[in-house]
Amino acid sequence: MPRRQPLDEFKLIETLLAPLAQGAPGTFGLTDDAAVVTPQDGQELVVTTDAMVRGVHYLPEDPPAEIGRKLLRVNLSDLASMGASPEAYLLTLAISPETTLSWLEEFVRGLADDQREFGVRLIGGDTVRSPTTDLFSITALGWAPSAKVISRRGARPRDEIYVSGTIGDAVLGLACAKGTVDVDDTAKRHFLTRFRRPDPRIELGTRLAGLASACLDVSDGLVADLAHLCDASGVGAVVNATAVPVSTPAAQQVTADQGLLISLITGGDDYELVFTAPAAEANAIGRLGHDLALPLTKVGRIVEGRGVHVVNDAGEEISIEQGGYAHFSAPS
Amino acid sequence: MPRRQPLDEFKLIETLLAPLAQGAPGTFGLTDDAAVVTPQDGQELVVTTDAMVRGVHYLPEDPPAEIGRKLLRVNLSDLASMGASPEAYLLTLAISPETTLSWLEEFVRGLADDQREFGVRLIGGDTVRSPTTDLFSITALGWAPSAKVISRRGARPRDEIYVSGTIGDAVLGLACAKGTVDVDDTAKRHFLTRFRRPDPRIELGTRLAGLASACLDVSDGLVADLAHLCDASGVGAVVNATAVPVSTPAAQQVTADQGLLISLITGGDDYELVFTAPAAEANAIGRLGHDLALPLTKVGRIVEGRGVHVVNDAGEEISIEQGGYAHFSAPS
Repeated sequence: MPRRQPLDEFKLIETLLAPLAQGAPGTFGLTDDAAVVTPQDGQELVVTTDAMVRGVHYLPEDPPAEIGRKLLRVNLSDLASMGASPEAYLLTLAISPETTLSWLEEFVRGLADDQREFGVRLIGGDTVRSPTTDLFSITALGWAPSAKVISRRGARPRDEIYVSGTIGDAVLGLACAKGTVDVDDTAKRHFLTRFRRPDPRIELGTRLAGLASACLDVSDGLVADLAHLCDASGVGAVVNATAVPVSTPAAQQVTADQGLLISLITGGDDYELVFTAPAAEANAIGRLGHDLALPLTKVGRIVEGRGVHVVNDAGEEISIEQGGYAHFSAPS
Repeated sequence: MPRRQPLDEFKLIETLLAPLAQGAPGTFGLTDDAAVVTPQDGQELVVTTDAMVRGVHYLPEDPPAEIGRKLLRVNLSDLASMGASPEAYLLTLAISPETTLSWLEEFVRGLADDQREFGVRLIGGDTVRSPTTDLFSITALGWAPSAKVISRRGARPRDEIYVSGTIGDAVLGLACAKGTVDVDDTAKRHFLTRFRRPDPRIELGTRLAGLASACLDVSDGLVADLAHLCDASGVGAVVNATAVPVSTPAAQQVTADQGLLISLITGGDDYELVFTAPAAEANAIGRLGHDLALPLTKVGRIVEGRGVHVVNDAGEEISIEQGGYAHFSAPS
């Protein structure tokens, strides 16, 4: 039973947060008004921020360590999509009365684990009281070589479209967390892990600099995010739905329900990179995927015009309803 | 009557927020995953974040433009206390269903006004749905010449303690907003403006580099913040309560109620700078105050030991109760 935990900002900073800043230069044990970061020669600062709200971005019963990790990872994924290497982050905690110290300790343990995994450190933040819902926000700072930052604006007609890893596990993970899908325990564990602990594709992002013409990370769903990329670049796209890579457990679900594939490519939270590149780079991209032991799969091409057109193997357009699920016309 | 305003993140960004980013390089109209900032030669990046929650940091009936301005100003004040010049900021909006578009338009108008006043631009952020309370958070970025960043750790015994401007108007402004104090309309307007629209002492901060041994901005209250400075520097302080500069309207209140002075020096939200400097710098500090047309008033001195001791003109210690108000022993 959660007990009412009166918030003492200074105590929380000292006991919970200061250890996350240990060894980070320019943070003064989180006691100063602001953090100081020394720029790196020939590098651009890349900065992003993402928030998560209880009941909106995570379920109250989700494991707190996983919420901390996901919050950090979605921010690192944004840096990755720009080709930046992460350096440090700031954390804002808005904490409601029913959130316990032990819940926060678990949340921070998740952050500590991922700090080690990704080589970043906490350098500042703010801790405030919230009357009701918890909200957590991270601002992440990274560096990218000047003139090598990848935007979402550079896609050109005839460029090929790639995605990293697999698409759709996260939306199945959300369904597992909500109990709206019936799968075996192994598949459930797989989907939940992919939903809760996305892999920011940091090394891929940095290696795509100079190779990809445009890039972003898939948070709103492959089709919606590709539409953002097309809008920003002033182009259209054709995506072959059956070329979109899915994991083995997801493929098993699709076999049972062909319509599900559209849910997977329109669901969000994948945090894979979708990027475009001229056809001449196909070999280099193949080698890069091999080097990173990460599938980089061609799923379509950029065209003149506007909008994302999803087609089946026969080239027939599949209608995608606004915002997600639509009935799937199985390839003939 | 506020109506339920369904949040459309992309629409809000396009119509309300993108204009705040106009002309800022590296923001791509707020359409990309992260912002890109080019470091300045020989400068350190200084970064801070502060959040405001409805019902905690502002009253629901406060003017929205003033809430936007205050949120930006408290962040700029943190940069000022480190001697940094502001460059840009990121904004996170967590918006509850009862918040209307017109409320947000006013909030953004306040930000736009202050962007012009302080020469900063929006470069990124996040817009999320909150089930209940609104929360707004800014991360501000600034630059300070390398090796000239002012921390709160450099105060040494025999340094003199100064404050900028006047102290205590904001706590009277809060009392006016809550209707717990009875003052005439002119005084009320003065106190409310000082509470809602603090002046970040940016130019003072940058000019104190190389002059002040330690500095911070007064947010928790002069006594509490000076205690933070002393803790960080490993020293103590003696402050003469009657030397603390107050505005004319505040002085009139103190005349009527001598005990009030302690409330003023322990209340928060002043966003003046409190700083320490060796006695040898007294003339330089006098000239600086003259140049900036900003009173810089000596209020005490740093001593060996620990803690902040508040004394009256006769040198008798005044007991300050934990967290604020205590009865004031009037000077004999």
